Amino acid sequence: MDPQIPKGFRDFLPERMRLRKRLMATMTDVFERFGFEPLDTPCLEYAETLLGKYGEEGDRLIYKFQDRGERMVALRYDLTIPLSRVVAMHPEIIKPFKRYHIAPVWRADKPQKGRFREFYQCDIDIIGATSMYADGELLVITYTVLKELGFKNFIIRINNRKILNAFAVNNGIPEDRLPDFLRSLDKLDKTGLEGVFAELTEKGLLSDRLRSSLASLTAEGAAADHEACIALLDGLVQGHALGQEGVAELRTIHETLKGHDVDPACYRFDFTLARGLDYYTGPIFETIVTEPKIGSITGGGRYDNLIGLFSKETFPATGTSFGLERLITIMEELGSAEAKHPVTQVLITQFDRELMPRNLRIARMLRDAGINTEVYFSPDKLKKQLTYASHKAIPFVAILGPDEDSAGKITVKNMSNGTQETLLQTELAAWLHAQHRNP
Amino acid sequence: MDPQIPKGFRDFLPERMRLRKRLMATMTDVFERFGFEPLDTPCLEYAETLLGKYGEEGDRLIYKFQDRGERMVALRYDLTIPLSRVVAMHPEIIKPFKRYHIAPVWRADKPQKGRFREFYQCDIDIIGATSMYADGELLVITYTVLKELGFKNFIIRINNRKILNAFAVNNGIPEDRLPDFLRSLDKLDKTGLEGVFAELTEKGLLSDRLRSSLASLTAEGAAADHEACIALLDGLVQGHALGQEGVAELRTIHETLKGHDVDPACYRFDFTLARGLDYYTGPIFETIVTEPKIGSITGGGRYDNLIGLFSKETFPATGTSFGLERLITIMEELGSAEAKHPVTQVLITQFDRELMPRNLRIARMLRDAGINTEVYFSPDKLKKQLTYASHKAIPFVAILGPDEDSAGKITVKNMSNGTQETLLQTELAAWLHAQHRNP
Repeated sequence: MDPQIPKGFRDFLPERMRLRKRLMATMTDVFERFGFEPLDTPCLEYAETLLGKYGEEGDRLIYKFQDRGERMVALRYDLTIPLSRVVAMHPEIIKPFKRYHIAPVWRADKPQKGRFREFYQCDIDIIGATSMYADGELLVITYTVLKELGFKNFIIRINNRKILNAFAVNNGIPEDRLPDFLRSLDKLDKTGLEGVFAELTEKGLLSDRLRSSLASLTAEGAAADHEACIALLDGLVQGHALGQEGVAELRTIHETLKGHDVDPACYRFDFTLARGLDYYTGPIFETIVTEPKIGSITGGGRYDNLIGLFSKETFPATGTSFGLERLITIMEELGSAEAKHPVTQVLITQFDRELMPRNLRIARMLRDAGINTEVYFSPDKLKKQLTYASHKAIPFVAILGPDEDSAGKITVKNMSNGTQETLLQTELAAWLHAQHRNP
Repeated sequence: MDPQIPKGFRDFLPERMRLRKRLMATMTDVFERFGFEPLDTPCLEYAETLLGKYGEEGDRLIYKFQDRGERMVALRYDLTIPLSRVVAMHPEIIKPFKRYHIAPVWRADKPQKGRFREFYQCDIDIIGATSMYADGELLVITYTVLKELGFKNFIIRINNRKILNAFAVNNGIPEDRLPDFLRSLDKLDKTGLEGVFAELTEKGLLSDRLRSSLASLTAEGAAADHEACIALLDGLVQGHALGQEGVAELRTIHETLKGHDVDPACYRFDFTLARGLDYYTGPIFETIVTEPKIGSITGGGRYDNLIGLFSKETFPATGTSFGLERLITIMEELGSAEAKHPVTQVLITQFDRELMPRNLRIARMLRDAGINTEVYFSPDKLKKQLTYASHKAIPFVAILGPDEDSAGKITVKNMSNGTQETLLQTELAAWLHAQHRNP
């Protein structure tokens, strides 16, 4: 039988897993520092829970099948809808509920370079808080995670659906065509302003007034500093109450970012950000990296009405999602992925079977001292045992022969420079610890 | 829409997640101490990869469906077959390959108390080592994990398929009926000796000789001490080369356990252990807890021929699996699950909007000091904010009013005893650290 892995899916061998685990550990650490708690939900949901929440395109990409002749089930498509279901089913959860969730999701997309059918999302959401300090906190966390991962060239783009709506209405878009308008605007990064104009014309939405408003805004918005940008948006929504609310919301978010000393060069109030999903109701945000060009690495926004789809009671909610796969791609491309760094710190060689009880006892001593230790399983030639250590990049090899053992000693070889010395067996753990501190 | 979770599936709210995460962290820590490395594989495999590997019963329980009109895919049923596929596809992996994998698996079983359709397995396997020191190491790890989790009353049962085969052949079972014999013997714990006799009679396998051999062995085997037990087994396989090999294998495993000071009361050479799966070729093992009675919590064995199903080259392999769900059930029943222990260590209350920039700055200071900190999002009445902290069991609340702030001070309240004191804001982090050390 020819072993195969399904198209669009991946195995992660140890070296890649270590980087993934380090990323997830950094995120978890930051999330908990802000008081977020872990949640896990099943990989399968009833299909009806997911369908109709992600637009037509989304519905097509959901993996669904019949569960043992019972109901249709589906592999989860993101972590937001399962969270909404959990909150609706568990009214006892204390609000605001701040949770994180790091887990795979599935999309039956056409596999292509950099696009997979199974990938991890890392989400933080705050349920039950109307305050914009909550939305601001999500962005402070975004900034903190990216900084702690060593990212330098990134920009968090921030906008507000209320401002977009006010702008659209002020420029003659009928209320019921708003989603259409936003979907076209969302393509600005991909198709440029002319592409957006073409699509809006096709949809019969492009007036001269809208054309010139869009042109002047996209030219100005990105360049202005934060205060100027907010003032510009303020002018834009004059006479539109909801739009003014949107601008006030941006101000509070700005205040939160300043309060946490977020580098002003790392965020931008960006009128052209639209985000794809229909369910956003207020602030929306995403993070782009300027190098390498790879699209957005985080995305989110406020979705105050979504939980109401599952429950008589609704809850204000806001959240953001980190794309683990893209973060890793960037770290690998920028060379900031860590060098080969094996789990095992020392290998104890096997001279012969007679000495194995001693090897096991020394291994136990080292492990008790917190040193990751392997004992070589077979009495192979020493050269073969050293080759194994070298291929696995194990930094130290402890060699025990009968003469050394009868003197209570052991020889330890530094695999990176070839030096070796002979120590008392009882000193080995402390010696290895010292090497680790002063390599 | 009425929110529902599919039958046989579970959400894990934060309190339960914390215990799960602690368990997985302990295991990972022990696995790495023995030089095991992480691997991850997709949740979906091609159906043909899984089918025919777990017996008829297993095939029925595999969740399978058509992938976008392409090939049949299936949710993974365990972590061993995916590992075998990975090893067959990646000949470059250095052997022995010691890997761990902690991940969910799926079985379309009838949901019932304590049996779920989605559950976690925690597996360690060693690929490419024929030495019994490898099998012994798996048992040392089993012991170490259970000890570090606080388990007291458990017994690792150890047997060897080669001994079982020799016994069966010496007692008149034809070679081709061996799997039948083992499947009946495997039910000893559930049905008792009489039940096994009944089933063997039904299958036409029970001779008088087999009956008396089984009766005397099951009476003696469990009681004898380890050396006596091995001697007994040695007598059993006289004249059967493969059986003698099996006994020699048990001796090396015993040596490994002694070398690592494993408590002799925690393991047993147990002739009646058979294990369900067909693919085991040598040592087999499982762990039972004597209280509460809950079945086995780990299980595994050597499967030297399995990888050959996927590859021209085959590799010796041995592994064991921890049942996360059962471990948790036991920890909860024995009350060794940790007490409510929230993520957040301190909540900073909000007096009014004016003071929020200061709250954010203090929060930043605390987070930079590694203290998990929440800032309350709304200027609610203080009583409401304290109630939130108390419901979430947050141990400290930092209260900042304008008078305190103008003096550079802050009041901190210990929620468990109600005491409070006023400190300099700059001293808060150190004060909280000190409380943590001397609660």
